Amino acid sequence: MDTRVSALPTLDLQTWITRQLERVEHALDLWVSVDACADAPHHAPAALMAAMRYAVLDGGKRLRPLLVLAAFEAVQSGLTEDYLPIEEGVDELARRGVAGSTTANIQPGEAALRAACAVELIHAYSLVHDDMPCMDNDVLRRGKPTVHVQFGQASALLAGDALQALAFELLTPEGSAMQPGQQARLCRLLSRAAGCAGMAGGQAIDLASVGLTLTQDQLQEMHRLKTGALLQASVLMGAACAEATVNALAGLQAFGAAIGLAFQVVDDILDVVADSSTLGKTAGKDADHDKPTYVSLMGLEGARAYAQSLHCQALQALESTGLADTRVLHGLADLVVQRSH
Amino acid sequence: MDTRVSALPTLDLQTWITRQLERVEHALDLWVSVDACADAPHHAPAALMAAMRYAVLDGGKRLRPLLVLAAFEAVQSGLTEDYLPIEEGVDELARRGVAGSTTANIQPGEAALRAACAVELIHAYSLVHDDMPCMDNDVLRRGKPTVHVQFGQASALLAGDALQALAFELLTPEGSAMQPGQQARLCRLLSRAAGCAGMAGGQAIDLASVGLTLTQDQLQEMHRLKTGALLQASVLMGAACAEATVNALAGLQAFGAAIGLAFQVVDDILDVVADSSTLGKTAGKDADHDKPTYVSLMGLEGARAYAQSLHCQALQALESTGLADTRVLHGLADLVVQRSH
Repeated sequence: MDTRVSALPTLDLQTWITRQLERVEHALDLWVSVDACADAPHHAPAALMAAMRYAVLDGGKRLRPLLVLAAFEAVQSGLTEDYLPIEEGVDELARRGVAGSTTANIQPGEAALRAACAVELIHAYSLVHDDMPCMDNDVLRRGKPTVHVQFGQASALLAGDALQALAFELLTPEGSAMQPGQQARLCRLLSRAAGCAGMAGGQAIDLASVGLTLTQDQLQEMHRLKTGALLQASVLMGAACAEATVNALAGLQAFGAAIGLAFQVVDDILDVVADSSTLGKTAGKDADHDKPTYVSLMGLEGARAYAQSLHCQALQALESTGLADTRVLHGLADLVVQRSH
Repeated sequence: MDTRVSALPTLDLQTWITRQLERVEHALDLWVSVDACADAPHHAPAALMAAMRYAVLDGGKRLRPLLVLAAFEAVQSGLTEDYLPIEEGVDELARRGVAGSTTANIQPGEAALRAACAVELIHAYSLVHDDMPCMDNDVLRRGKPTVHVQFGQASALLAGDALQALAFELLTPEGSAMQPGQQARLCRLLSRAAGCAGMAGGQAIDLASVGLTLTQDQLQEMHRLKTGALLQASVLMGAACAEATVNALAGLQAFGAAIGLAFQVVDDILDVVADSSTLGKTAGKDADHDKPTYVSLMGLEGARAYAQSLHCQALQALESTGLADTRVLHGLADLVVQRSH
């Protein structure tokens, strides 16, 4: 493996990220649109679509889509020494619309791009519903009024619901563009990560935990569901778009679990040390809401050390995959731990 | 075809319905449960599951599941003269859990039962969210306090979200129990019917229409999305669980569209003529909310005549399928038009 790694072209992580973000933003812009539904029997109501677009096209970090695409590329790199990075061609993909097309050829990376956007739609819908008055009652998200402030609560509720459905639409294009087995596998991974034994379940535990003292195990279980499940699913969905070996899959699963937790630990640290303008959301919110966090449980230094150890676990798991080129995943793991917002 | 029809055993519609309702209730009871998630890596939080069960196991009419199962049986009847009605065996299916099992054999009708329950979960989640204060603000549903009254708004929001995800989990069991192509097709039909160009889109139009005068075309478009899309999808999902011919599919699609509209026209009539105790929900609500309805648009007699003509259209469409035994679908269409609640 060492010789193969040394034979790889130099990686500029920031260039990779910039290029993939362009693809993702472009695809989301085209797929979350009235035009994309044009081949469906009915046109999506414009007002609902406006709220959906506002929720999605808001300049988020897009960590989940990047994980999908990086995992896909890493598994591709394991298939052949002369693997090709994902081709562009998003214009052509997007022009086919959400529903896909029976006449289109299979594009390299189409499945991964659809998976990347589907995960982001689930993440976006969860933020819309989380921000609502009956949940966290947040008025600001990434420096903009939240969806319910901008469009009203009823529209926010519906936009979130429709975004969840759209995620599964994106994963099941009509015709030959994606293998049916791949479509089914992606829907399986995403629905489980989003549902009662995943993200929604974690949020329910979170709701029930305000004002309580949790043990580290309980806090861990909450975050494993609330944030971890979808981050881990991102990695596994990327792998599912290529043909990962059992060994690679096991390593990626462990990698996803470790960075999923690390992400949350760092979130808790940032809530304490960063200011609102850097975060783009209200800082110090957890303490104000009397929510249990890794910092309240382990202290600031303890939480920092824990984040470092999860970072190490993630990199070891990556090593164990035996994949030829995991440098982008490595770089994303670094970013998760070192981020300032 | 006439000789084949005359050779069919006598159908007792009520017996068929009773038997299928037992299967559906039993399957929902077992699949919407913490136990069913036991093979998932995490257990669903019990409080969230309690709200989900309350929303689902509430003795609804189960029209959508019945349509799925009836369409499945009708298409099966077209495949062979000696077709077998769906076998029981729900216990065994349900014991495999939501996630399915790689070792289980394919059960006759497993796909149809999963599809039937998945459609009902989407319907159930939409009622939970619809009843919330920011939408219709209903406190009573089928004679019981609505989910947000019973569990609080935050839990109602999350339970609805988790029910939508669970619908797609049900359609994508792991392993060999259902063909991947079938899983993908069912997810495709359901996500499109639930999303922005279906149910959620129709509700958005509904929201925007309060106090407005709609033309019949506009009212039709709203209901085609809001209620029609999911009713039609029920029929098409049942057909997708067998192998329908192009001809049968076209007929079933038209059948689904006609009864989907008929259902709403009758709903509007009942809102005027029935009392709250028969309906199990607040009567006269549409007029109170100044919502456009078929009765406000066509008058009571006009709406009744329109329901009859849609009924005829549905039966003609059924005839055009060329399927050997469509008696149950015929009977369900009669019930949709003749129902008193």
